[in-house]
Amino acid sequence: MMNNKDTLIGRIPVLECLRAKRRKALQLFILESGNGLEEITSAARSIPIEKVSRLELDRMTDGANHQGVVLHANPLPVRTLPEWLGRPVAADAFIVILDCVEDPQNFGAIVRSAAACGAAAVLFPKDRSAPIGPATVKSAAGALEHIDMIQVPNIARAAAELKKHDFWLAALMPEGPQVLWDADLKGRIAIVVGNEGKGIRPLVEKQCDLAVRIPLTGSITSLNASVSTAIALAECVRQRHNAATAKRP
Amino acid sequence: MMNNKDTLIGRIPVLECLRAKRRKALQLFILESGNGLEEITSAARSIPIEKVSRLELDRMTDGANHQGVVLHANPLPVRTLPEWLGRPVAADAFIVILDCVEDPQNFGAIVRSAAACGAAAVLFPKDRSAPIGPATVKSAAGALEHIDMIQVPNIARAAAELKKHDFWLAALMPEGPQVLWDADLKGRIAIVVGNEGKGIRPLVEKQCDLAVRIPLTGSITSLNASVSTAIALAECVRQRHNAATAKRP
Repeated sequence: MMNNKDTLIGRIPVLECLRAKRRKALQLFILESGNGLEEITSAARSIPIEKVSRLELDRMTDGANHQGVVLHANPLPVRTLPEWLGRPVAADAFIVILDCVEDPQNFGAIVRSAAACGAAAVLFPKDRSAPIGPATVKSAAGALEHIDMIQVPNIARAAAELKKHDFWLAALMPEGPQVLWDADLKGRIAIVVGNEGKGIRPLVEKQCDLAVRIPLTGSITSLNASVSTAIALAECVRQRHNAATAKRP
Repeated sequence: MMNNKDTLIGRIPVLECLRAKRRKALQLFILESGNGLEEITSAARSIPIEKVSRLELDRMTDGANHQGVVLHANPLPVRTLPEWLGRPVAADAFIVILDCVEDPQNFGAIVRSAAACGAAAVLFPKDRSAPIGPATVKSAAGALEHIDMIQVPNIARAAAELKKHDFWLAALMPEGPQVLWDADLKGRIAIVVGNEGKGIRPLVEKQCDLAVRIPLTGSITSLNASVSTAIALAECVRQRHNAATAKRP
């Protein structure tokens, strides 16, 4: 059977996989002369640990920068939308919908920011998306282990389904009519992010309830996709923070 | 004489250099069979244009991805702090101080976000900083042409000097006591960003008037340095946007 186990390479991905405990870790390989791996070996608990030579680690990782540690684990759990919606979703959950983000660095960076900001999920399409490959994993810096990843066959249909579950869809667009900070992003929100070159596809945009822009005042008129997404996610956090602060007696 | 001219490679850096007109462009080289270069050749105006072969462009750029275009120009203007402070500075100018950001991708991405958000300058140290080399230029996506770059021998002394000119210094720190969104970032503000691993150095932190954090609620507890800087810059924009909106009759 293919893909029945995953090989995690390097300290942060391995440590976060062990910490998150979202998938079964199978076997840990560490450099026999490795230093500073105590945090990882202690997080490994009852998982078998094998000490191996540098040559062996290099061979296992095709020469990638393994930092003295490799983990075999079950595949990363990727959910379908019905599965995800079948479980409890918070009344103020916010998620990210990637409408064909193709650059793996952007994909990984967005997953990292989403996990850090407390987003509930990152939803991405089966086709025309960067894969969850080595570049995405590296850029996500362990965050893939901590956030729900939802893969869907069709983004526009997924958007419609989310709306039935009380999600408001906010398209992030350079020409969006509403300023990000003036939009109400409380409650269930999905931030919709388009392809780096082509933006959000019309059928997906049609599903969106609002379209927001980050008002740029400088002479460079575009932000990197992962940066603008992070700014929108931070705004979701800010509005929840403000609401919580206002409620305090 | 070394470094008396700069070689810009690729469509975005070349186009933004020609558009920004902050330094003298000397000669433009384009692929003899190149398509879609009209925007660049029209921005070149009176600058000599030479059509060359692919082989010649490859040779000029050491095999970098030149996209059919190379520009020779005067060196990128990098200012000293006294020079910069000797020119008019807006009463609500905000700038970024990089206390030894070492990753060129982060450096470039921060310059891009700063230019897009309308920051007035990016200040960086002579030593222990990523250089303005090819990786920084690529990541900045033309933004280096549009924003004042200030290089200083000593960040702590530069911070003290900026304070004399009514700048408030806001340290961006994961453990900062104040939540970013609760801090007053109007007026003259410098966002101080530390090294990716070691953070802001104590002598620099001592100069800061406040220390702000982005309150992260997720299980990943750190953001990429360029992402957290962009969120802080966006907050500077938001507070100015709000002030402007409030003033409207």
